[in-house]
Amino acid sequence: MKFCSQCSQPISHKIPDGDNRLRFVCDHCDLIHYQNPRVIAGCLPVFGERVLLCRRAIEPRMGYWTLPAGFLENGETTSDGALRETREEANANARIIELYTLFSLPHISQVYMFFRAELLDLNFSAGEESLEVELFSEQDIPWDNLAFPAINKTLKHFFDDQKRGAYPVRYADLVYPARI
Amino acid sequence: MKFCSQCSQPISHKIPDGDNRLRFVCDHCDLIHYQNPRVIAGCLPVFGERVLLCRRAIEPRMGYWTLPAGFLENGETTSDGALRETREEANANARIIELYTLFSLPHISQVYMFFRAELLDLNFSAGEESLEVELFSEQDIPWDNLAFPAINKTLKHFFDDQKRGAYPVRYADLVYPARI
Repeated sequence: MKFCSQCSQPISHKIPDGDNRLRFVCDHCDLIHYQNPRVIAGCLPVFGERVLLCRRAIEPRMGYWTLPAGFLENGETTSDGALRETREEANANARIIELYTLFSLPHISQVYMFFRAELLDLNFSAGEESLEVELFSEQDIPWDNLAFPAINKTLKHFFDDQKRGAYPVRYADLVYPARI
Repeated sequence: MKFCSQCSQPISHKIPDGDNRLRFVCDHCDLIHYQNPRVIAGCLPVFGERVLLCRRAIEPRMGYWTLPAGFLENGETTSDGALRETREEANANARIIELYTLFSLPHISQVYMFFRAELLDLNFSAGEESLEVELFSEQDIPWDNLAFPAINKTLKHFFDDQKRGAYPVRYADLVYPARI
């Protein structure tokens, strides 16, 4: 960030009066350009005992398997965002059951949220951001080829919880040194 | 948003190629300026049977009672953000127990998250954004003077759940026509 989006003048990286963090501040009009974490909303689409995964057609982690998820948009509820991503990435019709997992990833300033969802039919297919879309039983999950730790944890919780028939909401901080 | 923060040239509001939503796009360098919902993280600080509320010293809803909460910062976990806001608004020392309520407010593009927390001592006081800070029993809660619906719902759930001794995570969409 180099210029003010309101007045086009150069901005500085400094701590504004009354604040205690570095912000992007316009030296001309004093506007503070806050930057905040983004929410990623997704579904764990379940059909019987199987779950729907998408193989990523885009970076990061192209070629690896993931749950349908993406950045929440302005004006959208988190559950609507999760269903939209499920339509976009898997052309899949699903119904939200309940919030299931929530992860903070502070090193990349992201908050992940997954909803358990019922896959309503088998008319799914790869969307533009997916190479393929497939249903997996627990024993067939490509555990070594999952895209992100949040996916791994959500699936592990799910198959454990499925045996008990209870799905409490799980919250965890996923703090990693650098990559994802 | 009027100018590109990377190159200072004017931006247009249009649907980029391959997208389906209006975005702020620089006509000069093609940078897309995404805007996404923000997360508000807060605590429900509990001391015995009482909960800690802050009376707001700032707009919106100045003079009304709220739970300590505020915008999550980059690089922060949601639970750390909740504890930071509790320190800033109430000078209070608390310990996170568990995620408790989560609300989507799509009309203002916000996602609220409250954590149940144990208030560790009685050394609290009004921070800069609070007029006063006080512990309330259920019968003393100023129900008609709470700042936001998310506060009302979190407190109602809590006092119900306290009687049962179980605190499942609650998710709801709070969709209102205009204000809050």
